[in-house]
Amino acid sequence: MAEPALTRDVFLDGRLIAWQPKDGYRAATDPLLLAAAVPARPGQRVLELGCGAGVALLALGLRVPGLSLRGVERQAEYAALARRNGAENGVDLQVTEADLVALPPELREGFDHVMANPPYYRPGSPPARDAGRDAALREETPLADWVATGLRRAKGGGFLTLIHLAERLPEILAALGGRASATVRPIAAREGRAAGRVLVQARKGGRAPFRLLAPLVMHEGPAHRADGDDFTPGAQAILRHAQALDWGDSAVSA
Amino acid sequence: MAEPALTRDVFLDGRLIAWQPKDGYRAATDPLLLAAAVPARPGQRVLELGCGAGVALLALGLRVPGLSLRGVERQAEYAALARRNGAENGVDLQVTEADLVALPPELREGFDHVMANPPYYRPGSPPARDAGRDAALREETPLADWVATGLRRAKGGGFLTLIHLAERLPEILAALGGRASATVRPIAAREGRAAGRVLVQARKGGRAPFRLLAPLVMHEGPAHRADGDDFTPGAQAILRHAQALDWGDSAVSA
Repeated sequence: MAEPALTRDVFLDGRLIAWQPKDGYRAATDPLLLAAAVPARPGQRVLELGCGAGVALLALGLRVPGLSLRGVERQAEYAALARRNGAENGVDLQVTEADLVALPPELREGFDHVMANPPYYRPGSPPARDAGRDAALREETPLADWVATGLRRAKGGGFLTLIHLAERLPEILAALGGRASATVRPIAAREGRAAGRVLVQARKGGRAPFRLLAPLVMHEGPAHRADGDDFTPGAQAILRHAQALDWGDSAVSA
Repeated sequence: MAEPALTRDVFLDGRLIAWQPKDGYRAATDPLLLAAAVPARPGQRVLELGCGAGVALLALGLRVPGLSLRGVERQAEYAALARRNGAENGVDLQVTEADLVALPPELREGFDHVMANPPYYRPGSPPARDAGRDAALREETPLADWVATGLRRAKGGGFLTLIHLAERLPEILAALGGRASATVRPIAAREGRAAGRVLVQARKGGRAPFRLLAPLVMHEGPAHRADGDDFTPGAQAILRHAQALDWGDSAVSA
């Protein structure tokens, strides 16, 4: 197989550099939102399931110093890119090539944080134009397995943080069952719109009531502006200024 | 038992008059939000589970002409009040005194719409100061039974509309299971706050993806104003002007 064509992209106002396949799965805002949503503190251990080229882990590592960052990625070329991107950004990132339903023993300990941005498309939906992109986007492993594996790999009282399509929220909550408390931050493209994505924070063994927070609105105004970007201050805080997402203090007592 | 002391209250800017027990369960905004959320069209058949003094049914009957309105209520004094309030408002309201888990045969047909505002407090929480209020507020029938009964009483393609605490949303979605599509409209006291309540619209047998709409924000500004009320235009449209809730067109294709 020929070396895939790569692009060198910058995120977080230039703080993060990532090599990505030109035609494959390409990180946009979701990995940055996911990283911003993980309430990690310096020194904690973090695992990302399906880390792709590593953008979420790197964004988290750049925001919170002194983390132990582990990623698991099924596709060899993405795992290699994640390692390369770790070196490029001076972030110590350990990436294991494995399927999340068959994790090697060294990834079976209890992590303080597990995070994931599982594939958005269900089996049977039209294929993407690129095989790597298709494998990254298509849900071959059921969403419930992502949730169950994430919860298993978190230690008691640890957090599982997910970003996914809002329409899959009922499945995520069902997969959490009674094993975790959950807080949801909807993500809406514009004020008044239905949520397109949800960020879900689950605390393993937590007993707190379910919380449905106010949406994070990404763009100003009622429609797309052709001249320049239109991110809200809340979106800019995350996407440009590498700030943490506000969980309404639900994670403060961690 | 002595006749309970009653108050005569007005809702919907004077359009709706309701006698209610002075010290019992008293309708506030929730039954009006529930009524506004039911996408009924003239001529349809509506059932409310646990109708109390009938405020939600009456608000719906005043907004949509020509509905067949049935209520079921376990407490005799509330069932009597609902009948009296129907007469007082000139709305044809039939109320059956029964437990929702043992509905009489005449309420077992398929309704176009079933609605409910189930009790908010779990068994074991501190008792209310009045026995009737306590029975109205306390969850003796499990929430899952309200959902299951509501779905059973809706015809195929019919709607079940619920208002409840936001923290109970995962249970509601689990109880709907794969038997209905669902849309959620969070209700937040103020902009940026977590949802206190949720309105859930379930369509029996529906296959549409789950939708999480933008919240309905009830009050303007960051804190309570002592001088007069501070309802947002969206809240005023429902509470004063008796308008329907916007479901983002999910009910249009009904």
